[in-house]
Amino acid sequence: MNENKPVILITNDDGITAPGIHALVDAVKDLGHIVVVAPDSPQSGMGHAITIGTPLRLDKVDEFDGVESWQCSGTPVDCVKLARDKILHRKPDICLSGINHGANHSINLIYSGTMSAAMEAAIEGIPSAGLSSLDYNFDADFTIAKKVARSIALRMLEGEMPEHLLLNVNIPKVKESDYKGMKLCRQAYAKWEENFDHRIDPRGKDYYWMVGRFVNMDTGTDTDVQALHEGYTSVVPVKFDLTDHSIKGWMQDTWKELT
Amino acid sequence: MNENKPVILITNDDGITAPGIHALVDAVKDLGHIVVVAPDSPQSGMGHAITIGTPLRLDKVDEFDGVESWQCSGTPVDCVKLARDKILHRKPDICLSGINHGANHSINLIYSGTMSAAMEAAIEGIPSAGLSSLDYNFDADFTIAKKVARSIALRMLEGEMPEHLLLNVNIPKVKESDYKGMKLCRQAYAKWEENFDHRIDPRGKDYYWMVGRFVNMDTGTDTDVQALHEGYTSVVPVKFDLTDHSIKGWMQDTWKELT
Repeated sequence: MNENKPVILITNDDGITAPGIHALVDAVKDLGHIVVVAPDSPQSGMGHAITIGTPLRLDKVDEFDGVESWQCSGTPVDCVKLARDKILHRKPDICLSGINHGANHSINLIYSGTMSAAMEAAIEGIPSAGLSSLDYNFDADFTIAKKVARSIALRMLEGEMPEHLLLNVNIPKVKESDYKGMKLCRQAYAKWEENFDHRIDPRGKDYYWMVGRFVNMDTGTDTDVQALHEGYTSVVPVKFDLTDHSIKGWMQDTWKELT
Repeated sequence: MNENKPVILITNDDGITAPGIHALVDAVKDLGHIVVVAPDSPQSGMGHAITIGTPLRLDKVDEFDGVESWQCSGTPVDCVKLARDKILHRKPDICLSGINHGANHSINLIYSGTMSAAMEAAIEGIPSAGLSSLDYNFDADFTIAKKVARSIALRMLEGEMPEHLLLNVNIPKVKESDYKGMKLCRQAYAKWEENFDHRIDPRGKDYYWMVGRFVNMDTGTDTDVQALHEGYTSVVPVKFDLTDHSIKGWMQDTWKELT
C-alpha cells in the first residue's frame, strides 16, 4: 500500500460483478489506493442487516484489472466491517458505495444496502457516499454517474470533512444534454404502497411476491425526488442519529409523568 | 374484528416462539383487538431488510391462546407490510414490536429488526414502538418490561399522536426495587468495534465470525445509554427523515458550485 496515496474503500449491494461497481472503480482509480470489498451475490434491499448467526467467507479475487479486490458472503455492512478489521487494518480515507443500479432517493435510503454500507463507514468516522443511478438496467449508461462519482470523491479527499459525512447521491436517467448538475437537497417524504402478488405453488400452498408502487407524498421543491425530476443529481447529507427532537419536545409537554 | 376496539399489530425479530413476544401480547391483550404477524425464525440484526428476490410464506398459526396470529418466512419489515396488505386490509391503530431479547439503544437501533418493523409502521403513519429488554436471556424476567409496554400502549391509544410517532423503548436489567421509571432521551453516539474471529473449516478454508465490543463515545447525561445505566427505561422518539440539516448548511457554505 502506497502510504502517500489516500485509501479508498469501494463496496456496493448489487455484488462484485455488477457493472455499477466497475464503473465506480473506473471513475476514481487514479485518485488513490483502491480496495474493493463487495458481496459475492446481489444484496439489494438488505438495509442495515448484519450477519450474526452464520460465519462469513472472504476471498481475494481478481475482478478489477490491477485493483485489490475481495468478495464476501455477507451483507454490504458486513463488507465494510470486514474490510476495516481484516483487510485494511486501518480506516480508509473515504468510502464509496455503488454505483447502485436503481434509485435510493427518499425513503429508499432506509431499505438500501448501498446506503447502509456507506452509513456503516460514516459511523466509523469515515467520510462516505452512496451513489445510485436511476437507470436500474444492467447495461445502464454510467457516463454521467462516473463524472459525479469522481467529482464527489475529489471533494471528499480535499480538506477537512465533517466527522461523520455521509452523502446520498442519486443520478438522474437523462441525456447528457438535459443534465443540470448537482443539487443539495433534503430527503423527500415518500413511501411504497405494497400490493403483494398472491400465488399458489405446485403443491397447493400460498406464496406472495412483494410488489409496490412508489408514492411521493412530499410537494416540497427542495427534495431529492424533485431535483431528480428536474434533471439534477440529488445530494442529501444523511445522519445516523435518528432522535426526533421535535417529537421529544411534544412528549415533554404532553406525556408528563412518564412512569 | 370488533369495530369498537382498537387494532394492535404486534411483531418482533426474535421469531413468533420467542418469550418476549408472548410477554408483549400478555401485557396488552385486553387493550384492543390483537393481531400478531411475526417471523417464523429468528431475524435479529436484519435491520430494515426486505425480501425482494424470493417469495414469502404466510401461515395462520395458533401460537397465542385465542389471539389471531400469523407466521411469515420474511424479515420483520416484511411482516408489517404483509399484515397491512393481506391480513388487516387497513391500518392498525398502533404497532408494537418486541419485546426484544437484548438492547436496541443507541446505534443498535440501526441494526435492529425489532426497531425496523416499528419504523416501517411509522412510515405508514401508524404510531409505533419497539420495546427491548437489556436481558437477552431466553428466560429473561419481563415483569418490568410488561408494565412498560402496557403503559406505552395506553399512552399511544389515548388522544392524538404525532403522525409518525416512533418510540425506541429499552428496559434496564434491574431488580424492581432498583427500577427508576421511564425517561425521555436522545440516541447516544456509540458504535461496535468489530474483531472478527478467524477460523479454518474442516476443508481448510477460512471463515469469520463477527464478534464486537460495544463502545459508548457519548458522555452526555441525556442519552439512552446513560438513562439505562441509571436504572431507567429509555424512551427515544425516532424519525426516518435522515437529512442532516447541519451538514447541509456546511456544504452550502463550503461545497460551492456543486457540478
